[in-house]
Formats: sequence, C-alpha cells, structure tokens
Amino acid sequence: MTDFTHFNEHGRAKMVDITNKKETARKAIARSSIQMNQQVYDSITENKIKKGDVLSVAQVAGIMAAKQTSTLIPMCHPIPISGVDLSFEWSTLENNYELVIHAEVKTIGSTGVEMEALTAASVAALTVYDMCKAVDKSMVIGQTYLLEKSGGKSGDYKR
Amino acid sequence: MTDFTHFNEHGRAKMVDITNKKETARKAIARSSIQMNQQVYDSITENKIKKGDVLSVAQVAGIMAAKQTSTLIPMCHPIPISGVDLSFEWSTLENNYELVIHAEVKTIGSTGVEMEALTAASVAALTVYDMCKAVDKSMVIGQTYLLEKSGGKSGDYKR
Amino acid sequence: MTDFTHFNEHGRAKMVDITNKKETARKAIARSSIQMNQQVYDSITENKIKKGDVLSVAQVAGIMAAKQTSTLIPMCHPIPISGVDLSFEWSTLENNYELVIHAEVKTIGSTGVEMEALTAASVAALTVYDMCKAVDKSMVIGQTYLLEKSGGKSGDYKR
Amino acid sequence: MTDFTHFNEHGRAKMVDITNKKETARKAIARSSIQMNQQVYDSITENKIKKGDVLSVAQVAGIMAAKQTSTLIPMCHPIPISGVDLSFEWSTLENNYELVIHAEVKTIGSTGVEMEALTAASVAALTVYDMCKAVDKSMVIGQTYLLEKSGGKSGDYKR
Amino acid sequence: MTDFTHFNEHGRAKMVDITNKKETARKAIARSSIQMNQQVYDSITENKIKKGDVLSVAQVAGIMAAKQTSTLIPMCHPIPISGVDLSFEWSTLENNYELVIHAEVKTIGSTGVEMEALTAASVAALTVYDMCKAVDKSMVIGQTYLLEKSGGKSGDYKR
Amino acid sequence: MTDFTHFNEHGRAKMVDITNKKETARKAIARSSIQMNQQVYDSITENKIKKGDVLSVAQVAGIMAAKQTSTLIPMCHPIPISGVDLSFEWSTLENNYELVIHAEVKTIGSTGVEMEALTAASVAALTVYDMCKAVDKSMVIGQTYLLEKSGGKSGDYKR
Repeated sequence: MTDFTHFNEHGRAKMVDITNKKETARKAIARSSIQMNQQVYDSITENKIKKGDVLSVAQVAGIMAAKQTSTLIPMCHPIPISGVDLSFEWSTLENNYELVIHAEVKTIGSTGVEMEALTAASVAALTVYDMCKAVDKSMVIGQTYLLEKSGGKSGDYKR
Repeated sequence: MTDFTHFNEHGRAKMVDITNKKETARKAIARSSIQMNQQVYDSITENKIKKGDVLSVAQVAGIMAAKQTSTLIPMCHPIPISGVDLSFEWSTLENNYELVIHAEVKTIGSTGVEMEALTAASVAALTVYDMCKAVDKSMVIGQTYLLEKSGGKSGDYKR
Repeated sequence: MTDFTHFNEHGRAKMVDITNKKETARKAIARSSIQMNQQVYDSITENKIKKGDVLSVAQVAGIMAAKQTSTLIPMCHPIPISGVDLSFEWSTLENNYELVIHAEVKTIGSTGVEMEALTAASVAALTVYDMCKAVDKSMVIGQTYLLEKSGGKSGDYKR
Repeated sequence: MTDFTHFNEHGRAKMVDITNKKETARKAIARSSIQMNQQVYDSITENKIKKGDVLSVAQVAGIMAAKQTSTLIPMCHPIPISGVDLSFEWSTLENNYELVIHAEVKTIGSTGVEMEALTAASVAALTVYDMCKAVDKSMVIGQTYLLEKSGGKSGDYKR
Repeated sequence: MTDFTHFNEHGRAKMVDITNKKETARKAIARSSIQMNQQVYDSITENKIKKGDVLSVAQVAGIMAAKQTSTLIPMCHPIPISGVDLSFEWSTLENNYELVIHAEVKTIGSTGVEMEALTAASVAALTVYDMCKAVDKSMVIGQTYLLEKSGGKSGDYKR
Repeated sequence: MTDFTHFNEHGRAKMVDITNKKETARKAIARSSIQMNQQVYDSITENKIKKGDVLSVAQVAGIMAAKQTSTLIPMCHPIPISGVDLSFEWSTLENNYELVIHAEVKTIGSTGVEMEALTAASVAALTVYDMCKAVDKSMVIGQTYLLEKSGGKSGDYKR
C-alpha cells in the first residue's frame, strides 16, 4: 500500500520536505460548480447586465483565496503563485441551472498548485452561494475536482 | 424578482448593513463529502489505527477555516463564532468510498452562520484531498450544501 | 496638552482599554481619491462598458480591507463591522481626471469605525493604482481623510 | 489604447501570468504624508522624547503591511520581500505640520514591489492617524505616490 | 478524571460551544521572559537611549499577536479584545540578564482571555529573540505562564 | 559592540536587506516544553488511546504557525518553507510531567528559519495549554530555545 507522505514516523502529520525537489513550471486546473433554480439564475444574469455582477465578486474571491491556500490547508507549502485565472460557464438543462467554474493556477516552484486551483474554485462557488442565499438557500455546490495538472516529478495528469 | 441584498444603488457589491438586526442564537449545519477509491480509503482507515489520522487534521482545518470565513468570502460579516464541530461518516457502496462531512457552527449574532458551516465543510474536504493526493489525484469533492439553519428573522430552514 | 491615549505609563504603545465604553451604533465615512491622466481614465471607463471593471475589483478590495483593519493598524481594536459600502465618482477638470472614493462603515460597538473607513478608502485607491500601473505609474493617490462620524462619547464629527 | 493586463478575455479580473518573467533585483520607493495641526505635532515630537513614539509604531506597522500587500490588493502577486525600510521627515510651513513618509522595498523576483512600497507608506500614515485621532480628527493623509522603481523589463522609473 | 472539553463524542477536537455562557468583564495577565548574555543586554539598553528600541517593537508585536490568537490556536474562540498592554522589567543576577514580560488582556465576552495574554507574552519574547539573534543565538525564552485571571464562571485565579 | 542589524540610521527598526545573500539549504531545530500535573498528563495520554489526541492538534497548530511566522514577528522575512515536522517526548520525574516539543523547519532561501522553528514550538506548547486549561491552569511553558541550525553565511550552530 502506498504510504501517505504527510505523516512522520510517529504517525503524526508533517509538512512534507520538498527541499530537494526541483523548481519547474507548474500548472493546475480545477473545476467546481453551483446549481441553482431559475430565480437565482435570472437574478445573476440580469444583474450582470445592470453592472452588479455576482461573478466578478466570485472571481476576485477565488483569486484571493488561491493566495490563502497554504494558510487554510494545514500541510500545504507556501508557494509563490505566478498567475491565477477563473472562468465561468452556464450549463442549463430544463429548470436546472448550473454555473461551472474553472480555476487555473500557475507557479514556478518545487511543488504543484493543485490545492491552489481547487481552493480558488471552491471559494468562488462559496461566494456565489453567499451572494445569492437571500434568494434561495437550497443551492448546491457541485462536484469539485482536478481537471489537469502539469509539471513536477509525478508527471502530467488529465482527467 | 427578489433583489439581491449584496448590491448598492450603483449595482456594485456591498456588505449588507445588519446594524439593526437583532442578536439571536443561531446555528447552521452544512454537508460536504469526498469520494475516493479503495486504495485511498484503506490508507485513511488503516492509518487511523496507527495514529496518523487524516480526519483529525481535516477536523482541525475545518474548525480553523470557520474562523477565516469573513476573510475569504468578500461580503461576509465577521461573526464571533461560539462553537464549531465537525463529524465524519463513511458511506461505501461497492467500490465507491465516500467520506461524508458534517460541520455545525453556532453563534449569538445578528447574522447567520451558514457560510461558516459551508466553509468549514469545504476546507475539511480540501484537506482530505491534499493529504491523500499523493495516492490518487482523481478524488472528487461531492455535493456541498446547507442541511439546516435556525435563528434569525428569515426563520428556520431544513433541507 | 492632550495626552495620547495610546501610550502606557512607560511611554510605550498599548491598545486602549475600552472595556467600560458603552456599545452604541456608530458610523464613519472616509474619502480618498486617485488622480490619473486621460489614457488611464479612458481605459477604466471604456473597460467598464466591456464588463472588465477596475472599480468593482477596487470595491471588493475596499470592503475586504475594512475587515482587516485591526490586523493592519497595530493599536486598533477588533470590531464586528455591521456594514460597509463604497462609492466612486469622477471629477474631471480639463486633462485632470480624479476618481473620488467614499467608504462608509457601520458597527454597533464600543469604539468607532473611523480607521475601518479610512483603510477601506485607501486600499480601494491602492487597488486602482495596482490595476492601472501598467498603463501609467505616475498616478497620485490624493488626500485621504475622515468626512464624518457619528456615535460614541466623543460625539459627532463633520468635516 | 494600452490594454489593461489585469483582465482576461471575458473582461474579468485575473492575476497576470508572470511565469515567464525573469527574476531580477527590484526596488521601489513610495511616498505618503500626513498633515496635522500644531497640537498633534507637539504631542508626537514631545512624546518621542519621553520614549512613547508614534513614529516607531508607524514604522513597524508599515513594515508589517508591506508583507500583507498581496493579501490586501486582489491582483497582486505574493512576493518574497528581501528588505523594507521607512523614514520620516517633518516639513513645517507656518502652522502647517506635515510628516513625510518614505517607504523603500526590495526583492529579487519576477514582478516589482511598487504596491508593497505604496502599501507600507499608506499604512504608516493610517497608523499615525489612528494614534493621534483622539487629539484631532481633521488630520489629512496627503498625496501618496511612487517616487522611483528599478529592475524589471519595464525599466527604471523616477518621478 | 476531568474530561477535556475540547473533544467531541468521536474523540476528535472541537471548538467548545460557549453560546450559553454569560458575557462578563474578563482579564488575564501572563508572564514570559527571555534570558541573554551581557552583550545582548547592553545592545538593547544602550540602543534604547539612541531611540532604536527593541522593546517597543516587541510591544507592538505582542499587542498585534493578541489579536491573532484565535487564528493561531486551533480551538480558541474569536474574542473582541477590549484592551492589551505589555510591560517589561529587567532582572539581573550577576552575568545573567533576564527580561521579564507581562501581558495583560481584557475583554467583555463569554470566554476568557488567558490564551490571548499567553500568546502576546510569547510573541513579544520571540520578537526580542529575532531582533537580537545576530548578536547571540543562545538566548533562552524562559518560563511562560498565567499569572492571574478574573471574570467568568470558573472564577478568579491567582498563581 | 556588535550593532543590531535590525535598525536603520535613524535608530528605527527595519527589515534587514537580504537581497544579496545567497540562497542555500537551511534547517533549524527549536525546543519548547510544557510542564503539567499528573491529572493533565493522564488526560492527554489516556485520551490519545481513545483517539482524541491533544498532541495531534498541537502538531497541526505548530506546522500552521511556522507558516505565519513572518506575519507575527515584525522584522522577519517571508520565507518559502520547504518542510516542517514536530515531535513530542514525555519526560517524567516523580510528580513532574513535562512534554518536550521539538520543531524542525527547512527551507532553501537567503535567510534562516530559526524564527519559524521557535514559533512552531511555542505555538504547539500554547495549543497544549489551551486544550488542557479546563483541567489545570497552572501548567508552565518551559524553556524555549534554538537547538541547532545549519546553512547560511553565519555557519552552523549547535547548542
């Protein structure tokens, strides 16, 4: 069985030693989503036209959260992020409105930015929930996962 | 159409004025989950026995994240949280292992703690991902939503 | 001469004891501004139409900074802010374009929110500088001051 | 017209990708100031003698704020700052007392430290305001701008 | 045996529920110290005369750390601190120089401020170490403990 | 007399300029401890068996605190930590139970990680105090000091 790298010889958590890992260009793209009813969907999309823009707040929140990843996730290394971008896309099927969120994070460093991308996508979804919960509390944050990563010893990954 | 409360008259985001809302006891329970293959499941559950405990790190991360909610979610009010607890439960169906996470947050305040509970549950799930991603990167953080809330003017909510 | 309240009997800084001050509703409005040339002005106002909106990022930054005030300003008390709003207004005189920023912060607490309002306005101005500095580095953040405050023992203040 | 670099193709804010920018030694010096009446001026300068030192608190606040820049300014990259220094100088003209603040920040990195220097100077000025506002609330934080920067592709800048 | 209050029924850590505890005025005083050789002692005390003041930086650091206590200590409740003060006293015995640090923290809240006082004292001691370690790395941070606390259900405590 | 490096020519604190220091692999190990009576000792060690584990919370707290060092210690440089580990050992002498804490921090950087190791050890000790203070408030955090460091111009140090 593969050993977890995040535990020391006493079985307690540690921050893995990456002192000897090489610095390479790395990228990760994560995906999250939030499902809502038509009323929330209309509020977001119509407000956008009137300039009040839930998605632009969520975008800023996601970018700022990427920079807080190592503060939030206990065993995460602090990483000098070199770029973050988020994009939003609507997927509508009958009365089901889903906002799909992609977060892409880049760095040149000795460990990957998967957690930064996942955190950015999650916090963007949470921010949409926060701004719309006065309209409807039953929104659901959908599946959140890594779409792809590149760079580093463990090689590229594509879902 | 219900207006969003999070936008000012210029259509830009604001932090809603809750100066005149009454302080009441409030509670919120949120749910998230993370799905994994058998290898990760075995690693977590066997390691637990050997004291290295992914879930206890996730628990601490979730509790600490609840306290960072207003730092992460732009329009969230800072709230003096009076209690946080997380619990974990395994749901296994054939080769599908899902760790279900419940986060309960309490306060006496003039606004609810839904975002605190959702943030705690999300960050706990992200932490599990972080600690196990060396074993498998294809884990999926499942649906994240509010299970129930009580207290406050908008009344109780139960999914 | 009025003694500074922020120093103890050894002449060293302390956080003033407000344990016995009454909790009242308090409000403060601060003003800052940033001056720029026509090229930056055009970039901001035209981009706004194309949805890319410097001001909406500055708005989010100002609101989030208000919540960080007691982390930034050493002797500031942590205050449960109950509302924050920012507004922007253009003042143009010949080739001189000035973006005037107003930040309003509210709380129910035992000390005022002047610092929160000033910090929100300052960080909003800094954010505009950051987003436009690739176009022109000579922008100037203009005078930043308290416009008015109400609530608390020291009474109301209006500039 | 120069495009803003801080917006993606959807017109939403992003953190610019600097993955391919070269690491060079960089420096930036920013300037802010705060104007006050004679009473505040006397309090600061006399207290200094008695060891209580508004300026030494402002100095510490400015240095610590430089390290928080990427937390405060949404699109700012996290940068490993390699040095920060602040200096204060009084400029008095009749009854007008102005404390001029210079902040110098250095790094070896792939982006500049203009925002770090501007943030350090601004927060130092805000700290002086905070510590003296019990004496006079009408102090004005004066013009804040970049004095010079060096290093990086865009070349040196001197006001 | 007294049960720990910080564990839930699964034996995992939780933030204790204080929703029903009464808000009372509370105070705590903690003590730390740092021992150093004569060279460091001379550097600190002579520099103080020349205005460079290790202790004033340590004072600011301790006060700011008190406000970060609930961010650092996982199960600590966020508390609206209403006052913080630190004091320093030299205790010299032959060639042994010890700087004794007292930190006093106050609040009106539903839980005590022991951790805030202990954290302020500890961080003040760490800051002295940081600023003097170029002179001597063998300094020792001495015993750190609670001197007294008052307020709250568990009653007053005096060492 | 050795000059402090942390003061500028005005005698005020600065963050030392390390722009020209070489990046090398660095390591530091610090030690702290906490003394307690038998009741607390029994609670910790028996609870460990029942999975509730004070030490695993302290471990997470120490690791996360290492990452916050430059936020807490005013003149500390932000450093990209590449590894953190803590270990605990009981030293019992009659009725005196002492938990000895070792924290090891690594980086590749242009300044050392002594402060990160000392901060991690201190916060781990504070966390143990926090979680056990309901049982006994008279616990004492023992001597905290640097055990060894390696890397960097000033050479290796071993206590």
